[in-house]
Amino acid sequence: MNDKIEKYSIKELLDQYKIFLNKTVLVEGWIRSFRNSIFVSLNDGSTIQNLQIILSKNLEKNFLKKITIGTSIQVIGIITESIGKKQSIELRSLKITIYGGVDPKNFQKSILQPKQHSLETLRKQAHLRFRTNLFSSIMRIRHHIAFFIHKYFHKNGFFYINTPIITTSNSEGSGEMFQVTTIDLKNVPVKGKIDYKKDFFKCQTYLSVSGQLEAETASLALGKVYTFGPVFRAENSNTSRHLSEFWMIEPEMAFYHLEENMNLAEDFLKSIIKSILDFCIEDLSFLNEHIKKWNSKKKEISLLEKLKFILKFPFQRISYTEAINILKKKEKNKNFVYPVIWGIDLQSEHEQYLVSEYFQSPVIVFDYPSCIKAFYMRMNKDRKTVRAMDVLFPEIGEIIGGSQREERYDMLLNRIKDTKIDSRKLWWYLDTRRFGSVPHSGFGLGFDRLVQFITGMKNIRDVIPFPRTPNNAEF
Amino acid sequence: MNDKIEKYSIKELLDQYKIFLNKTVLVEGWIRSFRNSIFVSLNDGSTIQNLQIILSKNLEKNFLKKITIGTSIQVIGIITESIGKKQSIELRSLKITIYGGVDPKNFQKSILQPKQHSLETLRKQAHLRFRTNLFSSIMRIRHHIAFFIHKYFHKNGFFYINTPIITTSNSEGSGEMFQVTTIDLKNVPVKGKIDYKKDFFKCQTYLSVSGQLEAETASLALGKVYTFGPVFRAENSNTSRHLSEFWMIEPEMAFYHLEENMNLAEDFLKSIIKSILDFCIEDLSFLNEHIKKWNSKKKEISLLEKLKFILKFPFQRISYTEAINILKKKEKNKNFVYPVIWGIDLQSEHEQYLVSEYFQSPVIVFDYPSCIKAFYMRMNKDRKTVRAMDVLFPEIGEIIGGSQREERYDMLLNRIKDTKIDSRKLWWYLDTRRFGSVPHSGFGLGFDRLVQFITGMKNIRDVIPFPRTPNNAEF
Repeated sequence: MNDKIEKYSIKELLDQYKIFLNKTVLVEGWIRSFRNSIFVSLNDGSTIQNLQIILSKNLEKNFLKKITIGTSIQVIGIITESIGKKQSIELRSLKITIYGGVDPKNFQKSILQPKQHSLETLRKQAHLRFRTNLFSSIMRIRHHIAFFIHKYFHKNGFFYINTPIITTSNSEGSGEMFQVTTIDLKNVPVKGKIDYKKDFFKCQTYLSVSGQLEAETASLALGKVYTFGPVFRAENSNTSRHLSEFWMIEPEMAFYHLEENMNLAEDFLKSIIKSILDFCIEDLSFLNEHIKKWNSKKKEISLLEKLKFILKFPFQRISYTEAINILKKKEKNKNFVYPVIWGIDLQSEHEQYLVSEYFQSPVIVFDYPSCIKAFYMRMNKDRKTVRAMDVLFPEIGEIIGGSQREERYDMLLNRIKDTKIDSRKLWWYLDTRRFGSVPHSGFGLGFDRLVQFITGMKNIRDVIPFPRTPNNAEF
Repeated sequence: MNDKIEKYSIKELLDQYKIFLNKTVLVEGWIRSFRNSIFVSLNDGSTIQNLQIILSKNLEKNFLKKITIGTSIQVIGIITESIGKKQSIELRSLKITIYGGVDPKNFQKSILQPKQHSLETLRKQAHLRFRTNLFSSIMRIRHHIAFFIHKYFHKNGFFYINTPIITTSNSEGSGEMFQVTTIDLKNVPVKGKIDYKKDFFKCQTYLSVSGQLEAETASLALGKVYTFGPVFRAENSNTSRHLSEFWMIEPEMAFYHLEENMNLAEDFLKSIIKSILDFCIEDLSFLNEHIKKWNSKKKEISLLEKLKFILKFPFQRISYTEAINILKKKEKNKNFVYPVIWGIDLQSEHEQYLVSEYFQSPVIVFDYPSCIKAFYMRMNKDRKTVRAMDVLFPEIGEIIGGSQREERYDMLLNRIKDTKIDSRKLWWYLDTRRFGSVPHSGFGLGFDRLVQFITGMKNIRDVIPFPRTPNNAEF
């Protein structure tokens, strides 16, 4: 019977239901609910929506006992218009096959049990939370963001570059790194100091914190490139915004000055959000309602309003010095915890004031003091500031950090020496400034933090399948 | 002057040259050659083709001295039809600006020096090899393959999943792994054994060799998912086919039996190759000619012929037992080094005989002996073989390895115990077989090896920007 009957996803059936009316189709999925011994809600992960199955009336009692929440089934049936108002179509079952039931004892303890579970409980069963409406919505949106990012860069002439994960260098000259080794820790070879000639790569190696420097070398030949891969921080930051392992996007563009870098960053962020509003409105609307419940007591704007807010106006662009001047004027009124002095790194309270109160729009702050920024950023004529830029968003603060890169060999070498990084390790990076160096720029965007912003989740651990955080590498 | 003049990539200009005729445009790039004090070949990485620039005749001698190979320039000029036959258009320069020259002394030692360099020499200057025709072609093709893979899965209803890189488990139960740690190797905490409570994650952690098991848990809720990320092998394999860090694609599909898995694998590979023949024909043609030169003495088929060969026929599908019977018959004639006995893993010589001589087409071998395959593959009724499949290609052998996964809880638990893996570590994987388990399948494809096949490069180190291999983590 199955041989000639086509299989469809629930999304395909619902999206184009008119062409399926009165057709016999095959669907497969997991039971989400079962009512009145006749109505089964089936979900297959392709969409947040369930397909309503109408069971035939001649089913045996023993068989009906097996129709329980969480059970996986195959249904062959006829698509008909639904009488109920909740759905456009339903599937009148002709044949139903059970694949796998649920172990009733363990089911009680699982998050598949239909009741309200805390996000913390869902995290402890990360292998099962894909089956919840909340987490499957987030995963579908995450997919769409990732795909759109590849599409955006491809369309705009960028080439995708895989920079190394295992590295000998730390591009920022700061930040804790994980060590990668095959040395037997019970038997570390020591000759005065550790003999890394005995390690796999014959030197000490780490997990990369950024692919930028390598991506720059690629852009200085291919023009425009981007990375999209995992990076790592061995910092003991147990917060709702930090992961020890996260995914980063780093475009690098030859011949781009800082202004073009800002234009790209703004267009990129707006295009992503616009595309997600277009293509993921079902999942976004679900999250929108979900989050409203959490925020019921507060007068916060809704998720959809927040996303549309980003699209509304040009991002405000101000220099760091202007930002400090604005903040200084308000310092007494606002009771900032951190004092406002030229030279400080802007704190979250300062960023949020600029974005949510003063400008009421996303803000790009540029030309930061060189002393608080990395060695590879281009020095301004004032010799005090560098061509850095941070894009600041509501709620999460810095969503993008970037700069025009220092393309002048001597200036770069001086900066490397000033920051006490071993310039011999960066011979290849310096080399690119000796052979046809050009002005160029780039930025970094934390992918998971972007997903967090777009889905409105409070904790970044709820937007990545299996989060890695201090003390936790389960699954 | 620059303000109103639009900037274009050389690819944009050449692709649609008719609309640019007699227009003033701005281009930027690196000088590839300079002839007769007037003709500059400019490349900007967007395409393998150079744009011919015609310098104006009134340039000063001192300025002309700076026009050297490798130097980066900006040119404003008028697009005109070319008199020469080599190119459709050329750019008559109105204004030329030099960004960065080359250091003549160091240039002599660099691979930018226009002469034949060995691939080994290019690898040692991996930061500069992006500027060669050969490596930039490979990088552009690599980008197109990656993008097509995302597009293919997206179109077919798959969701992209980021599985963890840092892991506590080894999915295959075999293969050497890198350890990830923040323990100070000079001061390893020991209480009888190493006290991993002092490590970052409070347990021993490694770099993942595969995201399959985690991806399976996602597919058992979202339906169809795929991973595309780095994986690692700490094996001392210094060959032309192995990397210590490489990129892997792993689709996992709920409700797929082995035959659907094979159909997907075949369609996927053919679609990629078809798309690359369509979209990258310039770069492929360059590689085709390049490789012909290397192979000039051999009667090998050309790169383009090899790619078209993959598209020509359905892949042959035979069981492992059939494969062994075929090989046994030819054993004496062919003088195989490895004896052909039911139960062996097929060796490269066996695979190549099947593909290049016996069938003269790609081959899918399925139903391998359970003793040579991983614990998660579905046991057949004969209790001797599992529903594994390998897709075998000319030259490189196994390009895809996959299977239908064991969905039966008891069978899976037995296999885990048989293979002496600690089942407690896999509690979450086993759990998915307790709550609505379904038949499902998936496969793994080494991305770099696919790029190697499509570009025809003999050494896998020449298809990834910064290869990691035993004793080598430079750049």
